Amino acid sequence: MAWNTNLRGRLPITCLILQVTMVVLFGVFVRYDIQADAHWWLEKKRKNISSDVENEFYYRYPSFEDVHAMVFVGFGFLMTFLQRYGFSAVGFNFLLAAFGIQWALLMQGWFHFFEEGHILLSVENLIQADFCVASTCVAFGAVLGKISPMQLLIMTFFQVTLFTVNEFILLNLIEAKDAGGSMTIHTFGAYFGLTVTWILYRKNLEQSKQRQSSVYHSDLFAMIGTLFLWIYWPSFNSASSFHGDTQHRAALNTYLSLAASVLTTVAVSSVIHKKGKLDMVHIQNATLAGGVGVGTAAEMMLTPYGALIVGFFCGILSTLGFAYLSPFLESRLRIQDTCGIHNLHGIPGIIGGIVGAVTAAYSSPDCEGGFPGGIGKRGSRFILKLPFWGQASDENCFEDAIYWEVPEEVNTVYIPEDLAHKHSTSLVPAIPLVLSTPSASIVPPVPPTPPASLATVTSSSLVH
Amino acid sequence: MAWNTNLRGRLPITCLILQVTMVVLFGVFVRYDIQADAHWWLEKKRKNISSDVENEFYYRYPSFEDVHAMVFVGFGFLMTFLQRYGFSAVGFNFLLAAFGIQWALLMQGWFHFFEEGHILLSVENLIQADFCVASTCVAFGAVLGKISPMQLLIMTFFQVTLFTVNEFILLNLIEAKDAGGSMTIHTFGAYFGLTVTWILYRKNLEQSKQRQSSVYHSDLFAMIGTLFLWIYWPSFNSASSFHGDTQHRAALNTYLSLAASVLTTVAVSSVIHKKGKLDMVHIQNATLAGGVGVGTAAEMMLTPYGALIVGFFCGILSTLGFAYLSPFLESRLRIQDTCGIHNLHGIPGIIGGIVGAVTAAYSSPDCEGGFPGGIGKRGSRFILKLPFWGQASDENCFEDAIYWEVPEEVNTVYIPEDLAHKHSTSLVPAIPLVLSTPSASIVPPVPPTPPASLATVTSSSLVH
Amino acid sequence: MAWNTNLRGRLPITCLILQVTMVVLFGVFVRYDIQADAHWWLEKKRKNISSDVENEFYYRYPSFEDVHAMVFVGFGFLMTFLQRYGFSAVGFNFLLAAFGIQWALLMQGWFHFFEEGHILLSVENLIQADFCVASTCVAFGAVLGKISPMQLLIMTFFQVTLFTVNEFILLNLIEAKDAGGSMTIHTFGAYFGLTVTWILYRKNLEQSKQRQSSVYHSDLFAMIGTLFLWIYWPSFNSASSFHGDTQHRAALNTYLSLAASVLTTVAVSSVIHKKGKLDMVHIQNATLAGGVGVGTAAEMMLTPYGALIVGFFCGILSTLGFAYLSPFLESRLRIQDTCGIHNLHGIPGIIGGIVGAVTAAYSSPDCEGGFPGGIGKRGSRFILKLPFWGQASDENCFEDAIYWEVPEEVNTVYIPEDLAHKHSTSLVPAIPLVLSTPSASIVPPVPPTPPASLATVTSSSLVH
Repeated sequence: MAWNTNLRGRLPITCLILQVTMVVLFGVFVRYDIQADAHWWLEKKRKNISSDVENEFYYRYPSFEDVHAMVFVGFGFLMTFLQRYGFSAVGFNFLLAAFGIQWALLMQGWFHFFEEGHILLSVENLIQADFCVASTCVAFGAVLGKISPMQLLIMTFFQVTLFTVNEFILLNLIEAKDAGGSMTIHTFGAYFGLTVTWILYRKNLEQSKQRQSSVYHSDLFAMIGTLFLWIYWPSFNSASSFHGDTQHRAALNTYLSLAASVLTTVAVSSVIHKKGKLDMVHIQNATLAGGVGVGTAAEMMLTPYGALIVGFFCGILSTLGFAYLSPFLESRLRIQDTCGIHNLHGIPGIIGGIVGAVTAAYSSPDCEGGFPGGIGKRGSRFILKLPFWGQASDENCFEDAIYWEVPEEVNTVYIPEDLAHKHSTSLVPAIPLVLSTPSASIVPPVPPTPPASLATVTSSSLVH
Repeated sequence: MAWNTNLRGRLPITCLILQVTMVVLFGVFVRYDIQADAHWWLEKKRKNISSDVENEFYYRYPSFEDVHAMVFVGFGFLMTFLQRYGFSAVGFNFLLAAFGIQWALLMQGWFHFFEEGHILLSVENLIQADFCVASTCVAFGAVLGKISPMQLLIMTFFQVTLFTVNEFILLNLIEAKDAGGSMTIHTFGAYFGLTVTWILYRKNLEQSKQRQSSVYHSDLFAMIGTLFLWIYWPSFNSASSFHGDTQHRAALNTYLSLAASVLTTVAVSSVIHKKGKLDMVHIQNATLAGGVGVGTAAEMMLTPYGALIVGFFCGILSTLGFAYLSPFLESRLRIQDTCGIHNLHGIPGIIGGIVGAVTAAYSSPDCEGGFPGGIGKRGSRFILKLPFWGQASDENCFEDAIYWEVPEEVNTVYIPEDLAHKHSTSLVPAIPLVLSTPSASIVPPVPPTPPASLATVTSSSLVH
Repeated sequence: MAWNTNLRGRLPITCLILQVTMVVLFGVFVRYDIQADAHWWLEKKRKNISSDVENEFYYRYPSFEDVHAMVFVGFGFLMTFLQRYGFSAVGFNFLLAAFGIQWALLMQGWFHFFEEGHILLSVENLIQADFCVASTCVAFGAVLGKISPMQLLIMTFFQVTLFTVNEFILLNLIEAKDAGGSMTIHTFGAYFGLTVTWILYRKNLEQSKQRQSSVYHSDLFAMIGTLFLWIYWPSFNSASSFHGDTQHRAALNTYLSLAASVLTTVAVSSVIHKKGKLDMVHIQNATLAGGVGVGTAAEMMLTPYGALIVGFFCGILSTLGFAYLSPFLESRLRIQDTCGIHNLHGIPGIIGGIVGAVTAAYSSPDCEGGFPGGIGKRGSRFILKLPFWGQASDENCFEDAIYWEVPEEVNTVYIPEDLAHKHSTSLVPAIPLVLSTPSASIVPPVPPTPPASLATVTSSSLVH
């Protein structure tokens, strides 16, 4: 495969074709729903609605804004943990979500909001579109650092399409319930993303291993994402529920489940470290597992302690996944999952589906089941591997400089721990070493001159 | 002009005089609106209002909080992209906005909420005050790094005054409509800011050129600002609209327009780079142009695809502005626009006014027009150039250390690209060079000793 | 005392015991309130409620989410200002709050929401629990950097318990009013935290003085916390007020008071610096004092200018506290208050109580008073000092690496200003010095070799 990461011409054309298509399709199909139309006063008269506060806008808009924050700020910053891939994490997430919501409005509109030849648009559609795109943000986590923006846009196109079909089968044909999207959003997003990363397997990814780790402040940026996801998750799981007690209950259950998964994540993260230290990766991710796991059942009569129990186990299993399952998936099944989405969205999503089915079985004849996520993924396989999407070479993965103008500055490079140790035992003050290398592919792993534990590289010299 | 940046005495006195004046004027003029007054129960009885939910608070407060987040977090962090001006960006924005909202409550109160000798205060006034201050934050972007906090406070005082007069002429006398403030907020703010930076033109600004660029993490901080502005812009454009369908529609249109401008911004940003790379400046700014451009028309029956088309062109024109217009404005018209507000707020604001006029013309006899922003700017000209406002000298622009206690730490300085290249071709490990200089004005541009590509300066030694 | 910071075993067991206890107690006691229960339709019928919008959820949920953001994002990031304690600041705040809200739901439930053997859960309980935990986050600020996560959990347990008792005495027995919690949340939280830090006094804390300062970007992270606290404070003070005008008024007053305290904080911060420069610590903290100070009186008929006056004085006194009182408390009273919570929550909280009492006296026979915060603190004293909680030694305070896996990277260490000055007067380019030390306890304060003003230490080598 040719590693030509030059985006010139290809990215603009992809973006413009997609956006023009959106404009045309919106022109043909999309109109305002009566609640957002200048004829709303007629509707109010006809339905004898006494107050504007009964407009769906006032029931849903605050929750919508919270979900919106999760998709763009939450997922965007959650993925900035890599030391040199923050621009792409937050920028490409921005790009794919901005395209995804438009395509989702159309796809979901045709399936769910289609009346007399038109898709009718209200705040409910926006929430559904954001939900759909959230599953794309999940999938992005698996391929973070290894995929070009064009590939991302194509992936988003396929995923949103499949998402809607899958959701239609689950919710409309099988008549399962899934308010918070444990299955439709998280499980689907996770396995879609894992399939894509499996398709795009890279044998020599350890060539860019040094960039797969975080630096101190990049981990703090990622915590911005974590916390905004965490605080607004009650809105996520309740945004599309029925008015009144259902929406109320969905928020309560999510709040409780999330709280429980923080404590068990901390517990397990400490258990598995030889000195009991916490791992930022776990805190950034597994603390959110409670929100995923309670998604399906959140609006049901799960009981408050039921919600705590869900969060309890999701936190544990998710953290264990990060510690033991991810390395196994990578080495044995050739699944390179950058953000560990299998642990945050895959496992808890499945738990969520089961919990939902059990809860529903106890209270009503509703049933859950069926997961046709795999359908049609084959189509995307061939297309994503085409050589002209501008993918990065193995040694340039996780590097912003290939797609972004990066400010010139001196940047420190990851040093393997044992190396640092070796030198730190000598108390002699050492002279730091600046490696001025023309390309990232020639970064010498160990500085040649003796008492050096510091390797500084002019970042902009990496790729030119 | 004397470059005395010592704020001692002058800043405290300015702040205290302004704040005491506010207290006195509020004491004389400002009272609670009936909706926020203990007599609300009487009003409910008189108007036969059955439920507290009809209190304006529940219609407007969530949108108000989103706008509040945009003004303080959004604009504040958007401007932190400079490597050494983050404290001032976020801190001075905080200061000017905190003063501005008080003065705006008074000014707008006298013009719009004045009844029987008193300004009546409710959540609507807070939204209008935040709107007004948003235009000041826009103007701050043009002079970022070159203006002292005292000058900013004076500028805010003048701008809020003129804003209200201009808004009164446009909305009350000419009877134009401008819910999202394309004209009243963005175009006015942009041209006010550009006028101020033109007044304060600095011939030798290239002396601080090295500090006008960003560093890696400062660009990520700026993305916090971008994303919070982006997600909450639907609230901005709908916060002051009529209840019901109007508010609903304004949010939908803004959501769509913003999504479209992300894709076209990415497209154009990639087109104009010789290797197709994206530029963070464009992503941070031009992606928001859709929100500005749709401001006036957002609450009208613009149609969903109409909103997409507005965002489509705003993204394109805004990005082109950053690439081609800003350099032209600086070199030919002596307008030094640090954040490129002309491209984000000026051009899209004008588009917004035109789109609003066209949309209104098609649906109602409302008309748009008139832009008396220039009136009275002359007054501020003389005052702002007075020598005692503590402006920075040309070589100390864009530097926090002149106004803030900055933590002592080693900081790396911008190195021109060709210099970095020259050395990066040699593979010999180089010894970094620490320049311990007593003042920023003597920073040697090129380190004298040979194999050095790294220049480190103890930041606190810059200004003393 | 044995300085064994190894968390292995101890932290997981503490977390798991607490979480399992929560699950059991929730199972026994907690049920949904009728507003969040599937029987809500029955209630609607019985009470003749015509619309779902009358469900408490729609009155309170947007404010709840704002408060939630303050507790987790606001307080979490506010404390990231330390150069090497960001993981702990944001991570431990996350942990203690996630536990605290569960315990608070129980404690407050037993005291305030207990009916027929069950605690009835609705969005109101969530707000009260977040309020209660906010006081724990306040207390955390005093001991930041010096306390282990186990100690924090124990502290939270005691504090939430005492908080509820204290609140019950104040609000139910003495019948004081305190909507925004000036007394119950802020004053209580501050003096509880100060008591704990006084109990845990460390004679040799100057051993880790170099880590008690900030670095440039850590101060910007802290500003994220400040601004989210600032913008959402109107929601904090109004979230639990009565519907209608009371909630409306509480938000207005808080907005005004906060604006005033920004200006006076800037004024005083500049006055007390010899060159008039601003101090980030003041801007990050004292600007919020207006929100604390107006807490009690916010929902009363305080008048708009009354709110401004409260903010005016809170900003001044809080900034003066940071400058003069904190050093005094540390040197004379042996109170080491890392974040200066006495200045942000202690003093303004007391002012708030007085303002509330005066305001109430003028408008109604309600009275304020009584502050039994000290009761029972003695119990926690003995327990917190037990040697097995994994406290850090004096020279390892304010260091993430003892509790977290920290990414390997080169980190610069604080250099006392006069040292930097001495060398910065010589214009000779100096060779930087890398100190490779095996443990933080042996960091030499002054590098031995002559022309060095830069000391770089491989951070991960500090503690092993």
